[in-house]
Amino acid sequence: MTRGWGQPGRTASGPARAELLRQRNLALALGTIARAGRCARAQLAEQTGLTKATVSSLADVLIASGLVVEGDPDRGLVGRPGSPLGLDPSGPVGLGVEVNVDYVSACVVDLAGEVRASAVLASDNRGIDAREVCERAARLARSLLSSPPVSGLRVAGLGVALPGLVDTTGVLRRAPNLRDLEGIAAAAVIAELLPELPSTVACGNEANLAALAELWFTDHEGRDDFVRVSGEIGVGAGIVIGGELWQGTNGLAGEIGHVFVDPGGPRCTCGARGCLEHIAGQEALLRAAGAYGGPATALGSGLGSVHELVTLARSGDGATLDALERAGTALGVALAAVVNVVDVPVVVLGGLYADIAPWLASAIVRELEQRVVSYPWAPTEVAVSPLGAGAAVRGAAGLAIRAVLDDPASWHPDTA
Amino acid sequence: MTRGWGQPGRTASGPARAELLRQRNLALALGTIARAGRCARAQLAEQTGLTKATVSSLADVLIASGLVVEGDPDRGLVGRPGSPLGLDPSGPVGLGVEVNVDYVSACVVDLAGEVRASAVLASDNRGIDAREVCERAARLARSLLSSPPVSGLRVAGLGVALPGLVDTTGVLRRAPNLRDLEGIAAAAVIAELLPELPSTVACGNEANLAALAELWFTDHEGRDDFVRVSGEIGVGAGIVIGGELWQGTNGLAGEIGHVFVDPGGPRCTCGARGCLEHIAGQEALLRAAGAYGGPATALGSGLGSVHELVTLARSGDGATLDALERAGTALGVALAAVVNVVDVPVVVLGGLYADIAPWLASAIVRELEQRVVSYPWAPTEVAVSPLGAGAAVRGAAGLAIRAVLDDPASWHPDTA
Repeated sequence: MTRGWGQPGRTASGPARAELLRQRNLALALGTIARAGRCARAQLAEQTGLTKATVSSLADVLIASGLVVEGDPDRGLVGRPGSPLGLDPSGPVGLGVEVNVDYVSACVVDLAGEVRASAVLASDNRGIDAREVCERAARLARSLLSSPPVSGLRVAGLGVALPGLVDTTGVLRRAPNLRDLEGIAAAAVIAELLPELPSTVACGNEANLAALAELWFTDHEGRDDFVRVSGEIGVGAGIVIGGELWQGTNGLAGEIGHVFVDPGGPRCTCGARGCLEHIAGQEALLRAAGAYGGPATALGSGLGSVHELVTLARSGDGATLDALERAGTALGVALAAVVNVVDVPVVVLGGLYADIAPWLASAIVRELEQRVVSYPWAPTEVAVSPLGAGAAVRGAAGLAIRAVLDDPASWHPDTA
Repeated sequence: MTRGWGQPGRTASGPARAELLRQRNLALALGTIARAGRCARAQLAEQTGLTKATVSSLADVLIASGLVVEGDPDRGLVGRPGSPLGLDPSGPVGLGVEVNVDYVSACVVDLAGEVRASAVLASDNRGIDAREVCERAARLARSLLSSPPVSGLRVAGLGVALPGLVDTTGVLRRAPNLRDLEGIAAAAVIAELLPELPSTVACGNEANLAALAELWFTDHEGRDDFVRVSGEIGVGAGIVIGGELWQGTNGLAGEIGHVFVDPGGPRCTCGARGCLEHIAGQEALLRAAGAYGGPATALGSGLGSVHELVTLARSGDGATLDALERAGTALGVALAAVVNVVDVPVVVLGGLYADIAPWLASAIVRELEQRVVSYPWAPTEVAVSPLGAGAAVRGAAGLAIRAVLDDPASWHPDTA
C-alpha cells in the first residue's frame, strides 16, 4: 500500500548491523524527543535505556542534522539544570496531498505530528482528465507551501492519498468512483509537477492512510488493533493489527465499500449489486436525505452538504433520520463481517461517519451485537475518530515524516 | 486458537540462546528428514547448511530419542555409500479428535504427516449432555488407538478440533450449533477421559485447523496465502497469510458462517438473520434439495446424505441444482467480502464444498469476479481441497506433531 521509500536492510552482516543499530538508536532518540516535546539529555538516557555518553553523541548528530535544537538550561526543574532538547521548529515537514472524488487537499505536518497548515479545494474530479486532476492537487500544494505559516520550512517528502487500489508501482489500479485516474501513477505525476520538492514520494489508499493517521496522531489509548471505516463518496476501511497496517497479500486489504449489504440496491460502479457504498456512501446518504446538491464545486456543495445533513438530522427531519438509520444498519452489517472474519476489538468511525456518528452508532452497535459471534463475551467497541475529514491527507504527510523518524540519517537538509 | 503447548522462550539470554539454537537445529534436521523420507547425513548437511559434524551430532540425538532410524548403507547411490536416515516407523504419532455437530472423529498421524488410522462416528450431538459428547469422542479415540495398524505406537499429544470459538483457556465460548458444549473446556475433558495418554493437549476451531492441515499436509504449490472455507453444518473459514494461520486479536478470526448474504433468510442460531450458514450450510443445502434425512446417527444419514446430494446433482435434479446454485452464489458473496477485506489471492473449498465443488464453482467465480475490486488485474483463484471431510481432525493431530517437529527435544519416549 505504501510505496516509495526503501525498507531498512534486513540482512544484517557485520558493518550493516552496526549501521542498523546506529539508525535504530538515532530513531529512538528522535522519536522520544518528538513525543516529549522537551527532553533533557538525562531524561532521554533514562527513557531510552541508552548510556548518557551514547545519548550525547546521538543528540549531537541530531542537532547537526537540523532535526533537534538545544534550548537554554531549564532551571525550573529540581536538581542539576539540564539543557532541554526539542524538535527544531524550522526542521523538516512532510507534505501530504489527497486526491479524492469530490475534493483535493493538502497539508503540512511536522515531526511532532502537528498540522502546520492545511487546505481543501472542493471540486468534483469525476470525468476530468487525470492530468488536470493532478494539476489541481499540485497547485493547491504549491499554494499551501507558499503560505506564511510554512513558507520557510523544508519539505522532507511527499505522500499522496488516493481513493482506490494502489499497486506496488504506485499506479492507481482501480478507482470505481474516479475512473479517469485508473492506470495512472498519480503520485509520480504530482511529484513531477512539483519539481522544487525532494524526489521522495510515497502513496497509498486513502482509507489505509487514514487508519495510519489514527495510529500515529491520536491518543488511541493503546488500542493497537482496530478497523477504521472512512465515509467519503466511496467507503473504505483500514485495518490495524498489532500497531501495523494490515495490507493483505497484494496491499489491497480493507475494501469494505463493496461488501454486500442489500440485494435490492442499484448496480454499483464496481459492477455488482448491493454494495455498502450505495447505502452508506456520502452521495447515497445525501440523496436519501434529500440534501444532495449536485457535484461539488469550489464554491460549495460537496463537503459543505455534510453539514447540511447534520443540520437536517438535528432538526429531526424524517427522511434524513431514515437514511441515517439505514446507513447505520448497513455499516453494522458490513463491519460485523469484518469483525467476524478478521477479529479486531475496536471499530473506529472516520471521515463523514465521525460527523454523523450520533445518528449511526445505535444501529451499528445493534448489528454488531447481533452478528458478531464473539460479541457476548468480547463486545466490539465503537469509537469515533477525532481526526475529521483530514485524516487521510494527514496520514499521507505522515508517510514522509515517518521516513525521517525511522531513519533520521536519511535527512540531509542541504539537499532538500 | 491453538492452545496448550508453551511457546519456546523468546527472551534469549546466554544459555537460553544456545539452547534455542540447538532446538532450532534439531528441528531443522528432523523436518528435513521427515520431508525427504530418506536422507543420508551428507545430504542432510547440504540441505540444512550445517556442518557434517553438527549434522552427525544432531542425528545421534534424534536416533537416541527414537525419532529417527539409520538404515543400511545405501549402495545404490553414486559415490561413497551413505547410511540413510529416516523417520523411526515406530516413532511418535499425534492423535487428533474432532467433535462436530453431527459426528465425532479421530485420527492418528505420524511425523511425516501420513494418516496411520482414522475413524468417524456419525452422531447428532445437539441437545446431548456435554460430558456424553466428550465421552463419545474419547471412546472413539481409544478404540482407534487399540486398532492393529497403530496399537503399538506412542502418542506424543492430543489435538482437538471444535466447532466454535475457542478462547485462550481452551473453553468453547460460542458454538451456535452445539450450545451444550458452550462454556466447556472440551479438550481438557476428553484428555481426562484418556488418562493413558500424555498430558499435552491443544485445541482449536475446526475451520482453522482444517486450514492448517491444508498448509501442512497438501502440496499447495507454494501458496502460502489463502482462505479455506469449510462446509459442515456450520460454515467456517481459516485464513492463512505468509504460511501462518491468521488468528485475529482474540484468536477468533474466520467466522464466515455468519456473514450476511440474504435479508430474507430465517433467524440463525446466532440470533441474526441472513447468515451464510442458512443457505450454504450442510443442513440448509440438504433441506433445500429435499435430501435431508433427519439428524445423523451411527447408522446413516449425516455424512452419508452428502453423497445423496452428489447423486441428486449428478442426476440433474432441479431442486438440488437450484439449491447448489443459491449456495454457490451465497458463498461467492461472502468470500468476496473476505477477499475484499483481507486480500488473499486464493480461495480453497473444503469439507462438504470439496465434494460439491463442480456445482458451486461457477457461481462462486461469478460473484468473485463481479465483487472483488482487485479482480480485473488480480483474479482470485478458486481451488478444491484434496483433504475431504477429515481435514480438521488431521489438523488437530498436526498440532501434536508440530510440537515434536518444532522442538524434538520435548519428545521423551520413556514418559509417553
